[in-house]
Amino acid sequence: MSILVVGSVAYDTIKTPYGEVQKALGGSATYFSAAAVHLSPVKIVGVVGEDFDVSHYSFLKKRGADLSGLNKIKEGKTFHWSGEYEGDMNEARTLSTCLNVFEHFKPQLSVEHKKSKYLFLGNIDPDLQLNVLKQVENPKIIALDTMNLWIDLKLTALKKAISKVDLLIMNDKEALSFTKTDNLVMAAKMLNKLGPKAVIVKKGAHGSYMRFGKNQFSIPAYPLERVIDPTGAGDSFAGGVMGFLATNKTLTFNNLKKAMIYGTVLASFNVEAFSVTKLKNLKKSELALRYREFIKIIGV
Amino acid sequence: MSILVVGSVAYDTIKTPYGEVQKALGGSATYFSAAAVHLSPVKIVGVVGEDFDVSHYSFLKKRGADLSGLNKIKEGKTFHWSGEYEGDMNEARTLSTCLNVFEHFKPQLSVEHKKSKYLFLGNIDPDLQLNVLKQVENPKIIALDTMNLWIDLKLTALKKAISKVDLLIMNDKEALSFTKTDNLVMAAKMLNKLGPKAVIVKKGAHGSYMRFGKNQFSIPAYPLERVIDPTGAGDSFAGGVMGFLATNKTLTFNNLKKAMIYGTVLASFNVEAFSVTKLKNLKKSELALRYREFIKIIGV
Repeated sequence: MSILVVGSVAYDTIKTPYGEVQKALGGSATYFSAAAVHLSPVKIVGVVGEDFDVSHYSFLKKRGADLSGLNKIKEGKTFHWSGEYEGDMNEARTLSTCLNVFEHFKPQLSVEHKKSKYLFLGNIDPDLQLNVLKQVENPKIIALDTMNLWIDLKLTALKKAISKVDLLIMNDKEALSFTKTDNLVMAAKMLNKLGPKAVIVKKGAHGSYMRFGKNQFSIPAYPLERVIDPTGAGDSFAGGVMGFLATNKTLTFNNLKKAMIYGTVLASFNVEAFSVTKLKNLKKSELALRYREFIKIIGV
Repeated sequence: MSILVVGSVAYDTIKTPYGEVQKALGGSATYFSAAAVHLSPVKIVGVVGEDFDVSHYSFLKKRGADLSGLNKIKEGKTFHWSGEYEGDMNEARTLSTCLNVFEHFKPQLSVEHKKSKYLFLGNIDPDLQLNVLKQVENPKIIALDTMNLWIDLKLTALKKAISKVDLLIMNDKEALSFTKTDNLVMAAKMLNKLGPKAVIVKKGAHGSYMRFGKNQFSIPAYPLERVIDPTGAGDSFAGGVMGFLATNKTLTFNNLKKAMIYGTVLASFNVEAFSVTKLKNLKKSELALRYREFIKIIGV
């Protein structure tokens, strides 16, 4: 089945120790979709400016993506983020954030989109996430991601949104800052108690940790000899997770384990090149091979 | 079979967000042995001052430890380290290091100790490690640990020592600094090429990664809700690794996997209390239970 993803579509200007790109395709909805489409089709709800070249998304269309929810604003400019990575590359330094048309993004779902069974709420304003939650009619699995900005500015709305979803996906720093603890296991436990059936904490190069009530699952990242650009690692991880779940799965502990492995593997491809270059051209056989390899690497 | 361990015996003064201890039992040989004895007996080769109370080691003696190689120097003082941990507690800030009798430590093996089949060289001066290597007669598995000090001061001797061992155990920062790379997978690969059959990189709270030629194994740490004192985590991990191998195992990829799980589990107990308090009183059933739990947590 297909996944409705609501998030940002952006142009990114990025510098890493391995090079730089100007105005490359980015945004949470983009990275999520570039990963998810290898497992399930996506329906993107987002906003772009007149400068956005929709042919960038032809690799998604080829895999059955529905772009009818991509709103193009006349005379508007696409969201533009600029950042750089140094050292261990686990965190970006933001150089500039021009929200442009994204500042007034107000997702309105079409009649068809309201019926979506699988929903991913990217790290947008929690009030918008709540608004989308009101519009969907009978979803099967809803996942939500967020970011530090909303923890700092809109904690109450964010808590409310989190209480209404099935799966919370957060990175390590956000989880610690949200729960005001210095321990990730404790943080995941506390977040789990806010309502979601499951919580996945993303730890960048250190893997991911899942809490599903009393059940825990912990995996490292896929070992790479070189990371070219970590941008979108978290979103492509989420795309892999939801991509697997949307193959008509229910939210069980075991399904989430497999989902996290797909997330890890897809994120590992993503960081091997700038923008979505690697995910764009990824073959089914490459995904299947690395999936098997990863299972071997973590298997006792 | 028993393991010959050559390393430091110390008194530690430690402060963490959870409390502090004055002159508590510590040192690499101590932490290593406190973990290893749950799986195999140990023979400690080290040096202490007149102030050292050997009854501290009665918990090791009870488990068959051979302390005949523990040299007590008349009128000397035991090695004393003082440090504190803050924030994520992945690294200690050293407040003072008084080497005392440890400064002139020159391990001389007894006739019996020279016949040891399993040898662990703690993070002492690589020239001393080489000297011990010359003394052992027909060892089955030799493991070596080191620290930044020796990478900075005695790289040539350290490389020589590493080339002569079967298993290299190093922490992440040391592995990166030694190989001058910023990627742990690359670092482990390079270290593996120096001679050891296997390399284990310890990543503190982020688990451990093993390279055995082209084979890789990666596991997270055991998820703990609270870490009281990380001191000795790396040494108790090594103790678990060697403790398992010394149950008459050969150095195969599969044996090393199991060994790393024992190392992870024993290190997790160690950090739950100051000094060796937790390992000292650890029951067989507790170790077996957490071993099974960990296998479940990382199992797909």
